[in-house]
Amino acid sequence: MKSFAVSLRVRYAETDQMGVAHHAVYPVWFEQARSELARARGVPYASWEQRGYFLVVTEVRCRYLKPARYDQLVTVEVAVASLKSRAVVFSYHVRDERGELLAEGETHHVLVSRQGGRPQTFPPDLAEALRP
Amino acid sequence: MKSFAVSLRVRYAETDQMGVAHHAVYPVWFEQARSELARARGVPYASWEQRGYFLVVTEVRCRYLKPARYDQLVTVEVAVASLKSRAVVFSYHVRDERGELLAEGETHHVLVSRQGGRPQTFPPDLAEALRP
Amino acid sequence: MKSFAVSLRVRYAETDQMGVAHHAVYPVWFEQARSELARARGVPYASWEQRGYFLVVTEVRCRYLKPARYDQLVTVEVAVASLKSRAVVFSYHVRDERGELLAEGETHHVLVSRQGGRPQTFPPDLAEALRP
Amino acid sequence: MKSFAVSLRVRYAETDQMGVAHHAVYPVWFEQARSELARARGVPYASWEQRGYFLVVTEVRCRYLKPARYDQLVTVEVAVASLKSRAVVFSYHVRDERGELLAEGETHHVLVSRQGGRPQTFPPDLAEALRP
Repeated sequence: MKSFAVSLRVRYAETDQMGVAHHAVYPVWFEQARSELARARGVPYASWEQRGYFLVVTEVRCRYLKPARYDQLVTVEVAVASLKSRAVVFSYHVRDERGELLAEGETHHVLVSRQGGRPQTFPPDLAEALRP
Repeated sequence: MKSFAVSLRVRYAETDQMGVAHHAVYPVWFEQARSELARARGVPYASWEQRGYFLVVTEVRCRYLKPARYDQLVTVEVAVASLKSRAVVFSYHVRDERGELLAEGETHHVLVSRQGGRPQTFPPDLAEALRP
Repeated sequence: MKSFAVSLRVRYAETDQMGVAHHAVYPVWFEQARSELARARGVPYASWEQRGYFLVVTEVRCRYLKPARYDQLVTVEVAVASLKSRAVVFSYHVRDERGELLAEGETHHVLVSRQGGRPQTFPPDLAEALRP
Repeated sequence: MKSFAVSLRVRYAETDQMGVAHHAVYPVWFEQARSELARARGVPYASWEQRGYFLVVTEVRCRYLKPARYDQLVTVEVAVASLKSRAVVFSYHVRDERGELLAEGETHHVLVSRQGGRPQTFPPDLAEALRP
């Protein structure tokens, strides 16, 4: 499985009073990594929605191993874990600058015609771009 | 000027590593207070958008006097500070349980036909509901 | 298993351009429900931290069944799914006003002396309060 | 006044149902720009807090001219607008890829020994780094 990685700095607003990145921000980082993966494969997600395809999130899972801190440079690796005709699963690994694993997770999605819309089959170019 | 107040508890996710509610969350509280004001006056904001009216934010200002902390019960008072044919200004006062002022601010808005759309004149019922 | 429920309105800031509550906001709602459960059982979480006990999140899982929309009144039911000497699992069910299930999830936690600190055994009063 | 700029992509989670970046996210972008300015001048803000200096926000103002959209690359220019012995004002300009102004704002700060603590005079190296 070929993965793709983005780097980002933990924002002050993303910390909580425990002094670490709040756990609810990881799904946002996952989403950002997914966005960059789609762009890198030639099909920016914004163009999906313009064509009427919405990739709805049906499940999120995240395991937290070590905290991320303000201003820390973290890397989010994303890979397509599985691809079906109308659904896709992405997996994520969040690492610190030394490569140590901070968190790992996955998100499940279905393709629909619009939010609340009918499930759609991935058109060939999107299926090709997501091939694991 | 008749004001209206909503109470809310500071969420853990809203704190930052300084141990207080992050400053960017106050505009979100302002928005919630505005929503409840509209509902209390009989015109929930969701119905505005269904009718094609969008109340775009053109300016936000907030002054922070004392910090709000996790789980603290804060009250957000909102009032219509000024109303013109196509624009409205709301003012806000955030207080703790003893009534002490934590922050005060204001938001400026114009009514448009949709985001990026043309300015609109408030229809009579909305103008009436917003009368200061 | 005795559950506990809190009601909240979806904030405008919590929506995304799909027109629904963004998926990353559900863990924040879960946290709010947990906070209220602790308060209802006589041990507000703020008092835990004052005593030096931090309930760190080690895993979050959420399944999304139907979207929640701006201004919708949703109910978050929370229950203690399992309790061990130093760890606890909470389960959540998010419902709309008619009781229909919008999402369900769970969060796993360990008790530590502080963020990054050593795992602790729940003191008797907290263990009692969390008894499923 | 010498300014400094950071680029960032609008996150999907930062949009709202109007299809644009929510107004409350701009103060978060301002903060990120401030962080990068401090780093570029050799005194990362994380090191301030380690030394016991906290730069508290006392006021935020933002004017919104044009919306920012999902995945858009925006540039946040930040400059020190004024510096006093214990207070500083930063100004911000948010631009799109063609340089068009989307928003402008400012944040006011005082230096304190810790959140809720006593105002402090900027130590020489921080004053030097912030010189407008």
